[in-house]
Amino acid sequence: MSSKPESLYRGRQRALAAYLEAQQLDAVLLVDLEEVRNRSVRYLCGHPQDALLIITAVGRSILIPWDTILAERTAVSDQVVPYTDFGRDLNAAARTLLTGEKCTRVEVSEKISYPRAVELINELASLGMEAVCRRGGVDAHLLELRRRKEAAEITALRRAGEISDAICGELPALLASGPLPEHEVAIFIERRARELGAEGLGFQILAAAPERSFAIHTFPNITSALFGAPGLSLVDFGIRVKGYTSDATVTLVRGRTDALQERMVRAVEEAYALALELIRPGAYPAEVARAVDELFASRGFRMPHSLGHGIGLDTHEPPLLRASVGSSPCFEEDMVIALEPGLYDSRAGGVRWENDLLLIPGGTEPLTHTAIIRLD
Amino acid sequence: MSSKPESLYRGRQRALAAYLEAQQLDAVLLVDLEEVRNRSVRYLCGHPQDALLIITAVGRSILIPWDTILAERTAVSDQVVPYTDFGRDLNAAARTLLTGEKCTRVEVSEKISYPRAVELINELASLGMEAVCRRGGVDAHLLELRRRKEAAEITALRRAGEISDAICGELPALLASGPLPEHEVAIFIERRARELGAEGLGFQILAAAPERSFAIHTFPNITSALFGAPGLSLVDFGIRVKGYTSDATVTLVRGRTDALQERMVRAVEEAYALALELIRPGAYPAEVARAVDELFASRGFRMPHSLGHGIGLDTHEPPLLRASVGSSPCFEEDMVIALEPGLYDSRAGGVRWENDLLLIPGGTEPLTHTAIIRLD
Repeated sequence: MSSKPESLYRGRQRALAAYLEAQQLDAVLLVDLEEVRNRSVRYLCGHPQDALLIITAVGRSILIPWDTILAERTAVSDQVVPYTDFGRDLNAAARTLLTGEKCTRVEVSEKISYPRAVELINELASLGMEAVCRRGGVDAHLLELRRRKEAAEITALRRAGEISDAICGELPALLASGPLPEHEVAIFIERRARELGAEGLGFQILAAAPERSFAIHTFPNITSALFGAPGLSLVDFGIRVKGYTSDATVTLVRGRTDALQERMVRAVEEAYALALELIRPGAYPAEVARAVDELFASRGFRMPHSLGHGIGLDTHEPPLLRASVGSSPCFEEDMVIALEPGLYDSRAGGVRWENDLLLIPGGTEPLTHTAIIRLD
Repeated sequence: MSSKPESLYRGRQRALAAYLEAQQLDAVLLVDLEEVRNRSVRYLCGHPQDALLIITAVGRSILIPWDTILAERTAVSDQVVPYTDFGRDLNAAARTLLTGEKCTRVEVSEKISYPRAVELINELASLGMEAVCRRGGVDAHLLELRRRKEAAEITALRRAGEISDAICGELPALLASGPLPEHEVAIFIERRARELGAEGLGFQILAAAPERSFAIHTFPNITSALFGAPGLSLVDFGIRVKGYTSDATVTLVRGRTDALQERMVRAVEEAYALALELIRPGAYPAEVARAVDELFASRGFRMPHSLGHGIGLDTHEPPLLRASVGSSPCFEEDMVIALEPGLYDSRAGGVRWENDLLLIPGGTEPLTHTAIIRLD
């Protein structure tokens, strides 16, 4: 197990305590369980999964993990209380621990399901506590803190990008002598990721042979269809380093393409170039997305997904590059985003080009360097 | 793509319509998105991921998928409306489509987060619609329907078990000549799963070398630590067939064990045998779990997780085998569960023995056949 970067987590806990102070809250309760993941728990204390976390306005942190041995080895908190002490009952844990901290006004993560939140709010009310649960509250604040990356986070994402690049660079040789089953491509990526020191994959590898690349997120994610057969194949994967995941997609074009496929490839390349030109600190994600939507429309296409998204502990986090996110704030230095224009056709297949970009003064620095690959 | 089992999904949609009728509801809205997975959407219409689904009391089904091409190929519904038509806005989709169906009383899945549910309920109220969102409502009813498996579901789980068994059977030979990095074991499982026709894995493979097997769900899930080195190694994986996942764990004991490790292995074997003796239609999950807890306690141990759980489209679904689930219904024929007694120690490592069992008259039929493996 890695040693715990104590000061990193303490700093984040203090930043959250300042939010609580400003919001006149005594504590916040976050929940990261199988039903609802919340990577802000890992962000705040290093515990990777399956725990409740209470942070108080005076900066005390109480972790309530499912696996206490794991907590001892990974987490930075003032107190660890096994979740099983409360029979894994959210209300019981909240009641006992928040009362113990003498709270009168607390915020509960908005990720909790409606009936659970209602029960918890009522239960705390019966003890004289006011519980707040809202959009734009603590979860949004944490995503805001996570939006601009700290040096340690950029280092992790940079390393994830390097591993991703190394693997993408090996794909043409892997496929030079002919197509391979999708699962062989996925297994190659998995093995190389581990050999190169990744913590894991950011998400299930999506590998799509030409007859399956029509899907945005191909389903099943991997089959034994022949990746790299004539047509458009597409592989999308993330490399996780210290919790932080890259996100890159390679489209492989093999053999003679038809007119539609050529138009799709060209449009995606144009869209990518246009976006790259527009993305810089001060520019607005929605405006960049709108410009790309217009470019696609002028070529007779429509992209069925967002132009991109922030990456970090989550594969998808703010900022979102989507025309409909009108009022979101502008790009800032130290954000890290995945840019991924793509087009899909039921018959012709899919083209997606995706790289990770670090926002720097005046523009971007690529953390991954994929291209649309053509093989004969 | 596989052909669509039309009658299977239509039957399930009719069963849900009957629930709506009985509850005096006009429609139900289910949500399966990245933030909150709800496999009941796949259960009801075959669409595997990322969609809203409306079922009305007259049995009409409206699917609102993110990927419409995927929906065309996999889903059985009366109408498909792209989610992007509503700018991927849940409220806009619900407002438009539920108004179109002339609903006055609807139920919304309880999995929706609290603030989203509040907004949706208020929005529908402003249109004269009453929206219900509750524990023990439609999601619970669907889990109830999913608890006893239909023939097609048992066939899928049986096949998943066979593939799992085949792979487990090959592990001793793989490790006969010495330990391997955890990632090589995981890649072996992944490759064999694909070769044997699995749709995919049910969850991330958990492979733990002796120094990491103390964790219930080891983190990171795979590293390059040496699996099968002297001590207790543990691998937990699920094979997914047509959406249905097996769940089995093998503990590998290598070399001379110490007294604590021997006691742990023996206690887990005893617990497994006791549970197997008790589990039958009519028995109560909580009582079986309590008997095992008592056995462990009498040996000086405490199991930090449930004794088992139902499997199906989800890796964890009802029934839960946990002493604290006091009032849950008894075992019935055609349930399929994973039985998994386990013990963990920070120094000695972990022992878990997990197999899948089909409930049959008078007892169980194993769908997987792992054992605790000893290698010299």
